Amino acid sequence: MLKPTVGCGKLRGGNAGEEVILAGWVSSWRDHGGVVFIDLRDSGGVTQVVFGRSSSPEDPGQGELLKRSHSLRNEYVIAVRGRVERRPEGTENSKIPTGEIEVLVQELEVLNTCAELPFDLKNPGAVGEETLLKYRYLEMRTGKLRENLIFKHRLFQETRNFFSGKGFCEIETPFLTKSTPEGARDFLVPSRINPGSFYALPQSPQLFKQILMVGGMMRYFQIVKCFRDEDLRQDRQPEFTQLDLEMSFIDETDIKNILEEYMGVLFERLLGVELKRPFRSLGYSESMLRFGTDKPDLRNPLEIRDITEIASRSSFKVFKSAAETGVVRGVKVPGADKVSLSDIDRLTGEVAELGAKGLAWMRHKDEGLHSQITKFFSPEILDEIRETFETSPGDLIFFIADSTDTACRCLSYLRDKLYRPDPGKFEILWVEDYPLFEKDDEGGWKPLHHPFTAPCPEDIRLLDSEPGKVRSRAYDLVLNGSEIGGGSIRIHSGELQSRIFNIIGITPEEAESRFGFLLKALKYGAPPHGGFAFGVDRMTAGMMNLSSIRDVIPFPKTQKAHSPLTEAPSPVDRRQVYDLGLEVRVPEKPEKGV
Amino acid sequence: MLKPTVGCGKLRGGNAGEEVILAGWVSSWRDHGGVVFIDLRDSGGVTQVVFGRSSSPEDPGQGELLKRSHSLRNEYVIAVRGRVERRPEGTENSKIPTGEIEVLVQELEVLNTCAELPFDLKNPGAVGEETLLKYRYLEMRTGKLRENLIFKHRLFQETRNFFSGKGFCEIETPFLTKSTPEGARDFLVPSRINPGSFYALPQSPQLFKQILMVGGMMRYFQIVKCFRDEDLRQDRQPEFTQLDLEMSFIDETDIKNILEEYMGVLFERLLGVELKRPFRSLGYSESMLRFGTDKPDLRNPLEIRDITEIASRSSFKVFKSAAETGVVRGVKVPGADKVSLSDIDRLTGEVAELGAKGLAWMRHKDEGLHSQITKFFSPEILDEIRETFETSPGDLIFFIADSTDTACRCLSYLRDKLYRPDPGKFEILWVEDYPLFEKDDEGGWKPLHHPFTAPCPEDIRLLDSEPGKVRSRAYDLVLNGSEIGGGSIRIHSGELQSRIFNIIGITPEEAESRFGFLLKALKYGAPPHGGFAFGVDRMTAGMMNLSSIRDVIPFPKTQKAHSPLTEAPSPVDRRQVYDLGLEVRVPEKPEKGV
Repeated sequence: MLKPTVGCGKLRGGNAGEEVILAGWVSSWRDHGGVVFIDLRDSGGVTQVVFGRSSSPEDPGQGELLKRSHSLRNEYVIAVRGRVERRPEGTENSKIPTGEIEVLVQELEVLNTCAELPFDLKNPGAVGEETLLKYRYLEMRTGKLRENLIFKHRLFQETRNFFSGKGFCEIETPFLTKSTPEGARDFLVPSRINPGSFYALPQSPQLFKQILMVGGMMRYFQIVKCFRDEDLRQDRQPEFTQLDLEMSFIDETDIKNILEEYMGVLFERLLGVELKRPFRSLGYSESMLRFGTDKPDLRNPLEIRDITEIASRSSFKVFKSAAETGVVRGVKVPGADKVSLSDIDRLTGEVAELGAKGLAWMRHKDEGLHSQITKFFSPEILDEIRETFETSPGDLIFFIADSTDTACRCLSYLRDKLYRPDPGKFEILWVEDYPLFEKDDEGGWKPLHHPFTAPCPEDIRLLDSEPGKVRSRAYDLVLNGSEIGGGSIRIHSGELQSRIFNIIGITPEEAESRFGFLLKALKYGAPPHGGFAFGVDRMTAGMMNLSSIRDVIPFPKTQKAHSPLTEAPSPVDRRQVYDLGLEVRVPEKPEKGV
Repeated sequence: MLKPTVGCGKLRGGNAGEEVILAGWVSSWRDHGGVVFIDLRDSGGVTQVVFGRSSSPEDPGQGELLKRSHSLRNEYVIAVRGRVERRPEGTENSKIPTGEIEVLVQELEVLNTCAELPFDLKNPGAVGEETLLKYRYLEMRTGKLRENLIFKHRLFQETRNFFSGKGFCEIETPFLTKSTPEGARDFLVPSRINPGSFYALPQSPQLFKQILMVGGMMRYFQIVKCFRDEDLRQDRQPEFTQLDLEMSFIDETDIKNILEEYMGVLFERLLGVELKRPFRSLGYSESMLRFGTDKPDLRNPLEIRDITEIASRSSFKVFKSAAETGVVRGVKVPGADKVSLSDIDRLTGEVAELGAKGLAWMRHKDEGLHSQITKFFSPEILDEIRETFETSPGDLIFFIADSTDTACRCLSYLRDKLYRPDPGKFEILWVEDYPLFEKDDEGGWKPLHHPFTAPCPEDIRLLDSEPGKVRSRAYDLVLNGSEIGGGSIRIHSGELQSRIFNIIGITPEEAESRFGFLLKALKYGAPPHGGFAFGVDRMTAGMMNLSSIRDVIPFPKTQKAHSPLTEAPSPVDRRQVYDLGLEVRVPEKPEKGV
């Protein structure tokens, strides 16, 4: 085998005269009447190699080589030996780094052929996702996906070097562990050696990292796969990558400081972007009020205003009654001349699908607010509204009069719809002061984050009397409207942990059977501790401005949790299932055509 | 909370006079009549803190502090504020880095208490493995385990930095993938969204790394968990850590070069040990002949010699008949005066358990070989034996006359038993020139490594006629008698891959259903490629001279694949199993006492 002496992206004018061996894929093929040009590609770049042009009079066999070059096709794998020459004047290609030179081929080895391609590698967008995932290895050759994977690789290295440098110890936590559902379902793994028993794949290493703190490891981190068996929403994957970390003897400030430094290093090294520090910070309530969400995209300047009190004094029935049971809030679109009535109709339909009973609006024309509903408002009230939103001529205000939840959901949706943020900009912020609990469907309490999150010390006295008012010591990190991570100070007292379980309706027996090992560990000298977990796929996609995490996952699954490449999941031998002490309850899917 | 301003291992004489805050665990407690000394420990070291000795006349409340210090117990978590002082002359402790100083406590905060300990942390060896694994977090505080985990952490970082620096790209391969058993059983993961179908956890990313090569990634690596559902032997774990890598356009030499450089860096940086390069290399047959195993410990100088031909000419029936159907081989123990007859009796029993029909021996006394059997040998034959083993007076030779397999197994066992290698020494070597196939139980062929291993090009002509003679392009790496990794050049031709499947009895239909996606990918321009996989747990244990991989795994399982810490695997709600389209076939284990 001819072994490459240099990569396909390396040669420059200064290499002219050298003899080299290149290997790679035939990326394109051009026959210019007796001379054949091939763009030879490897993972580092492209070099033009030439058949049929002698580099020196003594070079033999150009005829034979030229003939063989005619049998080459796109994506054949070849190695060539040849001489580097400067391209003839006027034929240089300044678009590629090797554009000054070409390699005149003296020897050709065909290392492999390639079947007819299922899609044009230069236009992968022309086929559906199923096909791209099935031939993921071909998509990888197309540049964009390769670039994403290399970016993620660099993110991995920068991340580990950063945390190692800060004294964090990378420690592996088990994949075959105990089922302790934390909101989502666990993937189960039947045990053959212990039939009828199951391991679970971890939804996160949460309990183990707390155990490590009890073990005195003090600073832990890990980049690790986690698993959730969810009905897949648009951009979720059953397995995803988490950057997990935990520290002892710290408080919120320490964690936020170290993570801001980390994000700063990451953005600077990977993107050349300087993040402004300290990051902005928003309380949960304020974020919900101003942006309708706890993951606001702060590149978007549109802000929500509450006019519930003003609306209660109006004579517009819709607003008046909403003000009694819910809220009236609005968002202003500055200079909205381009938003037509039919746009408004469309948006009305869209927020209706999100549960809104209607979408009111007013336009600032000439001296004041005008629309079909302004007749129900006194000029004084209209003035108050105008002042609240600080409108100028041309501005448009949309209103939602509904429950707080619906108003937040719809106005957040409208914010996103009415402003297209600058894709080259990054806005990052902390969201904190979350309530510790929220109401569950049966009117009880459930943790807003997870049950190991510590309450604010000054709110502990409210735990029994007014649990809804207890704030948590949780903090989330939001990048351009996407939650890229979250964390909290944890409970390090076994007693307090048991109280929290009790409030969220976990009986002592259940707590013992699900989390007994954590409760036990907390009794043996657990230090104060807290931590964080990044969704690495989402963070990477956010930094690269990609719309889907699938673009940064080498082998993602479809929304049906299926791999078009391997056909996983798939039926297995009945014997394999039998050996696990199990039986398939539902009939296996019939084969196609049966 | 008092937050530490400095770690417990940091203070030196030069810090005297500083005010500091330390936090950690009470490691020991001594009351010297009115003055209480506590060794305060964190992950970085220990500092002596003192209660009841004023650092300055103005310091208030020593009485109160002293009283509170009496309530402290071992493994309580505390923070103290105090002044660093040089220890009084004569009381310095040169055994610890902070032994010049102590901290006179001015403020104490008890951060957590600790229940009565299940074992003495200073003597974890006194309790069984089950207890240690159940309280793994306590064992972590004892130093040795922590040290192992930190070593592994450093190995991880050095490894990734090395391969990143060599242009390898870290790429994640899926955990939820297709069941393609490679020798061992897969762990299966039932799919809820596709009932009756299963994912499998990967035994290795083998197929995916080959797919990545087809995808043009050219240099891939990953440190990743792999899974094997085996009946656990002494030192196996159901999940283990693999350093996986693959390269394109290379041959054996390239991979061996880069891995030798890697091992060199690792040993130098982590152990300060310089490995001699290039590593020694042994052919499989030679290794079996000289050491009875393909994982020889070369720190052990004892070597096996074959005397089959000589034995066939002797009149000793046992040797003569073994020479006809098997082999007669022996190993010499130099200066074996201390090996007594009762030692020999014991060894005879041990090799009998390994299948040997007997254990013959001869001792070199005075001028020649002597034992109960020497009377069956002519002086000339005895001379030949003596010359073959190059014996001197005092030497002892053990012989096994048996099948090749049994002779290898028993003589390798004897080598290990009769020589205790230097634990501070490292002997590393390549073993290669393996046969591609070995006989399976039904008399067919199975791959000695895995079915994607390429045959030596010059042996391909023997594939159909004499498959047993085909050598593979596989190479294993052996450290001190332990296989720490293995790899090969892979098959990159779909056609050749199909031929190999055929020889090992995989029908085209089965090949398609199990490995169809690889066979397909090989058709689309697969480059020549090869790679390697290290067993990181074994490599780490080998470098640290630890007898078990459990010592380098933070949360290992027992031989019954059980976690005493979490109690995984465990029964789950019937509903969870039902939702997966499954039923438990065997009754769940009864609760204790039922």
